[in-house]
Amino acid sequence: MDLPTSENTAVEPNEERPKVARRTLISSVAAVTAVAGAAGFAGRSAISVPAATHGGGADEAEGRDLARKMLMVGEDEKTDLTLEYLRILIDGKLPPRAPRKKVLVVGAGVAGLTAARLLKQAGHDVLVIEANGSRVGGRVKTFRGIFEDKQLHAEAGAMRLPDFHPMVLALADKLGLKRQLFYNADVTPQAMPTGALPPVVHHSFTGESWSNGSDGGPFQAPTANFRTKIAVNGAQSSRAAYAQSPRAINSSFGCDLDTTVSAAVTKAFEKVTVPDGPIADRLAAWSKIFQKYDGYSTHRYLVEEAGWDLNRIQAAGTLENMTSRLHYSLVPTLIDHAVISPTNRYWELEGGTDVLTEALAGPLKGELRMGRRMTKLTQTAGGVRIETTAETGDEESFDGAPTDPVEVFEGDYAIVTIPFSALRFCQVEPQMSYAKRRAVTELHYDSATKVLLEFKTRFWEEGPNGFTGGGCVSDSASRFTYFPSHAPDGSPGGVVLAAYTWSDDAMRWDSLTPGERYAFALNDMERLFGPRVRAEFTGVGATQSWARARYALGEAVMFTPGQLHELHPAARTVEGRVHFAGEHTSLKPAWIEGALESAVRAFLEVHPR
Amino acid sequence: MDLPTSENTAVEPNEERPKVARRTLISSVAAVTAVAGAAGFAGRSAISVPAATHGGGADEAEGRDLARKMLMVGEDEKTDLTLEYLRILIDGKLPPRAPRKKVLVVGAGVAGLTAARLLKQAGHDVLVIEANGSRVGGRVKTFRGIFEDKQLHAEAGAMRLPDFHPMVLALADKLGLKRQLFYNADVTPQAMPTGALPPVVHHSFTGESWSNGSDGGPFQAPTANFRTKIAVNGAQSSRAAYAQSPRAINSSFGCDLDTTVSAAVTKAFEKVTVPDGPIADRLAAWSKIFQKYDGYSTHRYLVEEAGWDLNRIQAAGTLENMTSRLHYSLVPTLIDHAVISPTNRYWELEGGTDVLTEALAGPLKGELRMGRRMTKLTQTAGGVRIETTAETGDEESFDGAPTDPVEVFEGDYAIVTIPFSALRFCQVEPQMSYAKRRAVTELHYDSATKVLLEFKTRFWEEGPNGFTGGGCVSDSASRFTYFPSHAPDGSPGGVVLAAYTWSDDAMRWDSLTPGERYAFALNDMERLFGPRVRAEFTGVGATQSWARARYALGEAVMFTPGQLHELHPAARTVEGRVHFAGEHTSLKPAWIEGALESAVRAFLEVHPR
Repeated sequence: MDLPTSENTAVEPNEERPKVARRTLISSVAAVTAVAGAAGFAGRSAISVPAATHGGGADEAEGRDLARKMLMVGEDEKTDLTLEYLRILIDGKLPPRAPRKKVLVVGAGVAGLTAARLLKQAGHDVLVIEANGSRVGGRVKTFRGIFEDKQLHAEAGAMRLPDFHPMVLALADKLGLKRQLFYNADVTPQAMPTGALPPVVHHSFTGESWSNGSDGGPFQAPTANFRTKIAVNGAQSSRAAYAQSPRAINSSFGCDLDTTVSAAVTKAFEKVTVPDGPIADRLAAWSKIFQKYDGYSTHRYLVEEAGWDLNRIQAAGTLENMTSRLHYSLVPTLIDHAVISPTNRYWELEGGTDVLTEALAGPLKGELRMGRRMTKLTQTAGGVRIETTAETGDEESFDGAPTDPVEVFEGDYAIVTIPFSALRFCQVEPQMSYAKRRAVTELHYDSATKVLLEFKTRFWEEGPNGFTGGGCVSDSASRFTYFPSHAPDGSPGGVVLAAYTWSDDAMRWDSLTPGERYAFALNDMERLFGPRVRAEFTGVGATQSWARARYALGEAVMFTPGQLHELHPAARTVEGRVHFAGEHTSLKPAWIEGALESAVRAFLEVHPR
Repeated sequence: MDLPTSENTAVEPNEERPKVARRTLISSVAAVTAVAGAAGFAGRSAISVPAATHGGGADEAEGRDLARKMLMVGEDEKTDLTLEYLRILIDGKLPPRAPRKKVLVVGAGVAGLTAARLLKQAGHDVLVIEANGSRVGGRVKTFRGIFEDKQLHAEAGAMRLPDFHPMVLALADKLGLKRQLFYNADVTPQAMPTGALPPVVHHSFTGESWSNGSDGGPFQAPTANFRTKIAVNGAQSSRAAYAQSPRAINSSFGCDLDTTVSAAVTKAFEKVTVPDGPIADRLAAWSKIFQKYDGYSTHRYLVEEAGWDLNRIQAAGTLENMTSRLHYSLVPTLIDHAVISPTNRYWELEGGTDVLTEALAGPLKGELRMGRRMTKLTQTAGGVRIETTAETGDEESFDGAPTDPVEVFEGDYAIVTIPFSALRFCQVEPQMSYAKRRAVTELHYDSATKVLLEFKTRFWEEGPNGFTGGGCVSDSASRFTYFPSHAPDGSPGGVVLAAYTWSDDAMRWDSLTPGERYAFALNDMERLFGPRVRAEFTGVGATQSWARARYALGEAVMFTPGQLHELHPAARTVEGRVHFAGEHTSLKPAWIEGALESAVRAFLEVHPR
């Protein structure tokens, strides 16, 4: 047998890392690239075995490393990577010129398109290879032109851009796209914000500030009314009524809390919440969280650390969308609880989120090769070679053997941005490092499914309890129901995200056909709004199951307990001439911001080589 | 708001249970039924709140209850339920005659068909309502008549019957079906067992023995050779070579074990392994396992209790099929490790597993209503009412709105055997108890996917290293590859289960179309057996994703940490006039034996009412 040895050819975990001479990101990235490249491509028999870990969490070095990545702090612990990346991506301050090279980018989602644009701007030759023959964008996908009212559109994927994700917002501004508020909590119909649209501002921990414009004075978003509904255990309430007197709804779960469950979750997470403060303190705090809790599921934390009983877990799980992910890592739940809060501000792009990826792809028309799916990736000492097969069907229904001959692309380097769930089915020769292969095999991809229904009128806006935007929550199969924040001029109707489900909640829907999904989602809408919904339904729906999508193979990475320190670091390491980007290589998985961060990182790795 | 009160109308957790007068199962079941019925059907506002649990595991009473259910011990802790059930199901010793009633059975899988047969035998009127218009059997499904060689068949679902599952084996014998060995480990081609087929024997802990025939003398199965392959980390080995010198394969994972990983898992599980012995000892031991470890995932146990490092977890996870389920409950992993062992004996049914469900359905032809899917279940003080819609398409592709009018069935009682993932989409009025609704919502259903490829010859049987049956394991996407144990007379070819995957491993395949699955599985076969596989492939494949199956909505229940004590007990409780059966209500989920146990239990609940 030709077996690899067990010798660890990578840098020893306790070995001191080479000191980075300058505070710039670029030099430190280049140093890391060289090291990882040497270890990862020393030949077929080389394996890079990760350090053994005992106990459920990360060790000290792993915890610190994850904390830096989470907070976008350079290895020197002084560089603000967000600031660096904004200067590169938005201000166009590219690193010093480097030898021209040809780079193959696999995947035309946000990460691939962004990395390709930067490389092209920096003078390199790029080619973006995309399996989908009909559109770019990946998990940014807008349903358009399929509703009865042709003016309407709705999101299959990314739909809300958090106010504290500066890269995506500034990129949209730079591309001339119009952003408008996404109402995560409902507002009065026809209510409008006042004041000038605020610029994107990033206050760095370095004391510096970055902005893409000057402050035009106070901007005021409409007040949230919380008129949307909570429908659980056979009872209904408005969110406002629940906030005012939470006991009735709580007790329907047998839960004795006299605060909202959201407040209770915040309290339960207090000891794992990192307050604003000096970056050294935040790094230390996050590092400890990864060390102590990366082995914890949300369920385990709530039971063992917060002392919650089952009824409280079920109440909070239902209302705060935690139930279906209780067995996953605590850390994403912590972050989601902070990020997807009704009190946070969100934006959306006028015309649909895919205006972003269309704009990104615009200048790359000559460099885009659509409808070619990577089947094999080979690297030699001198370059990379990608074999592809033709994709002649559409993204949902293609089947059968390819009819085209194999088409081969060659380059000096590659940036692979496709999900690891898709990479799992590609041959890679020579095989990648042990740690990377485990990450490709094991990283958990989650399910997320949307069922959208078009209605003739926006009946939910009528009357004194009418509302625009926001979402209802229920314990029905549909779970979360979101309403459009804006309506095109003159369109009386709207498309409702009747069922937005994650994880196990989504898997139930994933077994069903589109027609069944529409029927069941309409049943649940009827429970919320009465029989009128049947007359209002235009008969047109749209649905997206990301777990069933044949190019996405899942919604996004969702860590199971331990995977953050066991697998995440290897997700982004360089394998010889092959670099990796995409939300799954970031610590903002599932968000456009994470894809953008990864794209700039991969660009900075490849450019100086 | 019409909110339920928080008063607990069910039996208080600490209240002493009514003493059961006689040792018989039937009376104790009837008592439980009465109690659960009263609590579960006291009206819309009644909720039965489970006892709060602190700490990750079950409390003492919950642990004991789960131990009894696991070991099939009656509440008196003296009755062997397996023995009781064998006497009822196989020997036809039905309980005393009871008032004739009409029972609606929802679902024509193993549980539904079996419960219906028993009820009919006991003199009741039954009607079995099945959504699938083309076949009975549920997750027992045999692909037949679709391969190039029309003699060949292959299993989409259940394929192996463990020797220690007496009910299913004795039922097959009773129905006149022929069983033959299923070689979980490979044997010499053309090797045959010697001696007479042994009868099914159940040695009860009561000291009694049950058998369906007399022992015809020694029966000898062919010896396992372990010539099937292990292909991981770029290296290949036979299972026999690995067993003899495990270090090379282990070290390819950076794992320093010098035993097989299977032996290491057995050792790691030693302190949670219950040896044979007096039933009181086994009950006590299992009760402690549920109390201490029901909050544990397999990953947590291996890290925190066994002290394993990541590389060892990855080596064992890969070779023992644990990786994709590391974040699920420890308990099913313990049981799988004991059950799916190459040294255990398994059986299969000649002609395919669906001969069992076809035989069960035979005498029920007049009582079967096919192609009707339950949409609504209503119960009143006097009976049950089931609304159905017509299913006009096939089980994979049906879409669109039903064209038939609603058809309604009425009865005195119902037994619902469909998966909770399917029940999630049915309206139930009045709503069921709180605990049942949480079980329906939260119980995790797992993914399992098979990709089958037909080959012109059984080339794997050729040469000195040829083998029949058994399975290869690899770290490719296909993971496990099983070979047929038997071939029809005169058929030169065979259907290989090229890829058998669970959980996250299966989800990767679930995103793909059938044609893609065949192409990728063939790629992986080529890695094991060389380019010859392409010439041998007939071009015909078959594939089954249980997560995508629109009547199954998942493979089977797979508990996440805590769900065994938090949700399982409510899965089987009676809701007024509605009873529940199916693998998901048993503690042998995913196995036919569990479905049979649940069917006899449900029959015994309904019959005396």
